[in-house]
Amino acid sequence: MNLPLGKTRETKPLVHHITNWVTIYDCANITRAFGALPVMAHAPEEAADMTGIASSLVLNIGTLTTELIDSIIIAATAANKKNIPVVLDAVGVGATTFRDDMAAKILNSVRIDIIKGNYSEIAKLAGEDEQTRGVEATSIDADPKQVAMKFAESRSCVVAMTGKEDIISDGRKTYVVKNGHESMGMIVGTGCMAASVIGSFAAVNENYCDAAKDALCYFGIAGELASVRSEGPGTFKLHFYDEVFNLSDEKAQSMMNFEEC
Amino acid sequence: MNLPLGKTRETKPLVHHITNWVTIYDCANITRAFGALPVMAHAPEEAADMTGIASSLVLNIGTLTTELIDSIIIAATAANKKNIPVVLDAVGVGATTFRDDMAAKILNSVRIDIIKGNYSEIAKLAGEDEQTRGVEATSIDADPKQVAMKFAESRSCVVAMTGKEDIISDGRKTYVVKNGHESMGMIVGTGCMAASVIGSFAAVNENYCDAAKDALCYFGIAGELASVRSEGPGTFKLHFYDEVFNLSDEKAQSMMNFEEC
Amino acid sequence: MNLPLGKTRETKPLVHHITNWVTIYDCANITRAFGALPVMAHAPEEAADMTGIASSLVLNIGTLTTELIDSIIIAATAANKKNIPVVLDAVGVGATTFRDDMAAKILNSVRIDIIKGNYSEIAKLAGEDEQTRGVEATSIDADPKQVAMKFAESRSCVVAMTGKEDIISDGRKTYVVKNGHESMGMIVGTGCMAASVIGSFAAVNENYCDAAKDALCYFGIAGELASVRSEGPGTFKLHFYDEVFNLSDEKAQSMMNFEEC
Repeated sequence: MNLPLGKTRETKPLVHHITNWVTIYDCANITRAFGALPVMAHAPEEAADMTGIASSLVLNIGTLTTELIDSIIIAATAANKKNIPVVLDAVGVGATTFRDDMAAKILNSVRIDIIKGNYSEIAKLAGEDEQTRGVEATSIDADPKQVAMKFAESRSCVVAMTGKEDIISDGRKTYVVKNGHESMGMIVGTGCMAASVIGSFAAVNENYCDAAKDALCYFGIAGELASVRSEGPGTFKLHFYDEVFNLSDEKAQSMMNFEEC
Repeated sequence: MNLPLGKTRETKPLVHHITNWVTIYDCANITRAFGALPVMAHAPEEAADMTGIASSLVLNIGTLTTELIDSIIIAATAANKKNIPVVLDAVGVGATTFRDDMAAKILNSVRIDIIKGNYSEIAKLAGEDEQTRGVEATSIDADPKQVAMKFAESRSCVVAMTGKEDIISDGRKTYVVKNGHESMGMIVGTGCMAASVIGSFAAVNENYCDAAKDALCYFGIAGELASVRSEGPGTFKLHFYDEVFNLSDEKAQSMMNFEEC
Repeated sequence: MNLPLGKTRETKPLVHHITNWVTIYDCANITRAFGALPVMAHAPEEAADMTGIASSLVLNIGTLTTELIDSIIIAATAANKKNIPVVLDAVGVGATTFRDDMAAKILNSVRIDIIKGNYSEIAKLAGEDEQTRGVEATSIDADPKQVAMKFAESRSCVVAMTGKEDIISDGRKTYVVKNGHESMGMIVGTGCMAASVIGSFAAVNENYCDAAKDALCYFGIAGELASVRSEGPGTFKLHFYDEVFNLSDEKAQSMMNFEEC
């Protein structure tokens, strides 16, 4: 039986983040709720050392600056050397030229093991002609499954495309995850938090495609459970954290809703 | 009938923020709860581009640095050119010389459409001889309505002065808003969040004075509703978000409590 | 009778923070829930001025950069001159060389009145041979009470070592605080928040050793009370804030659980 939560809680992997200033607390807090240990350290002088004691690295360009890009590349280089998984959440790619350029700089400088983004962000990275509206997911013209699969294949990495349905592909195998609930869109930061969960599960599962699929299923399941008890974004967030904390592999496995295609 | 919430939820305007690191998450989250789309991007390289796709710009000097001031001026210049509303929350003006100087630099460099602050911050900006204690609202010696009106007139902008009663003026018309509840002071950040709501409503209403009045009424009404169900800052914040999310124009219009003078 | 809460709520001391970007909101919010007024301002140009109007200074190196170190030293120098208490939360010392070097730089440049950290952080600062795992508390080989006492004595300051039991020493007097609950570890940031409470109580009590002991007792008591009503990190955090807000000196004094040794 597949036990990603049990393994995370037992191993307590250290998940290093260089992330944005909007959702940084929730990235840390959801990492802990899933049983891993978050650390956030963005000074270039210590980015490599902190990555050196971590089991995975989560990068997020939500509030990018040139200083952060330097730290991101230093940390990812250290992670590549140590061979621990690197997750990149490509927040807002497509919204500004700077963001597109910096995402390209990261992808050209280091190995990213798991690229996460919403439909339009991934499509933009993959060279499709898309327009991001701020940092919001939008539908895309191309077939999302094909976009994810080809982009994953071309970069020899895992692509996790989040939306109403999440698509995860390593270029050969492609999963469509149907867990999740629209209530998750009531609060800011669920996308960023999902990347932290992917980083937490990938820290304890060498099959990053399966780790990303498990992470998005479990994350979505907690959202489904929380939505039942919620009357708005306040109560939803409260129950979401409690549901994650009280989730078991047994319960989650019985609720997983995904297809392989 | 005046339907600011319905219009915001339907239009989903993108509200760009360059704000402080303390309340940045809540500024984003309240913007979303009111139906608009928040984006936060402070790198000088993308500040203009991000403003270029936004419908309003909210600036906040709560954790000011010289780097942020540069981005603020770049973003506001782009907003002025595009003719979208710019809100400045003058957090802590009066507390340090640096803050006073930087606020003056902003006001002298770009057009601010709506200046928001507590009584002492606005009085200080308006040239009254006031002392801010940290970032807290204090009573002022001068007549607040006169201060707001004259300052708005002199700068040809809207002034929103928040406190036990909020005063909003465009130099001709002056509103006194009596909605709100003292429970809102139990949590940090309600002032910053109010600026985000003003930015959200001003994005869909060219009459910025009315937009600011509506925003402070609606924001205060959600506070009144949440206070009934709260036992402290934890439950208050929870219910506040739920009340905002579940608020309707119909309900809000029946509870609006303001005077024009 | 000892009334730290009553005194804090009556005096409303301004507590200046230069802290990390992960827990900055909760540091502000817990300061307010305890009745003090938080302010966060990290620009080097205003760090001294803001400290000049504050009653205590709380420093936290959780997301350290070289720019922040400069501001920290400027602010602490101003606090030393004004003779207000300076609290340093030595987050993550032992995890990277940069962090160790910067903590040493602070300690060699200014007077820190209260040094706070978990067992391994304090042991590392005190010259014991310990390894920090990320920013998590770990057990240490040496006798914690001896480590705290000797380190406090050697630096003529108060040392607050947090863990399952908190140890507070000024080099002569040593307290062991047994209040607190394991639920507090479910959420990120309780360590940082505790430093803010120490700063709030030290602002109104010249005996910093007693102020730190009171702060850790009261903070732990709120955790105990909240844990009873909680089902996970979501509900815990909610109730924790409510319990702090509704705590009275009378109730807290009846629940204080500490020993002097």
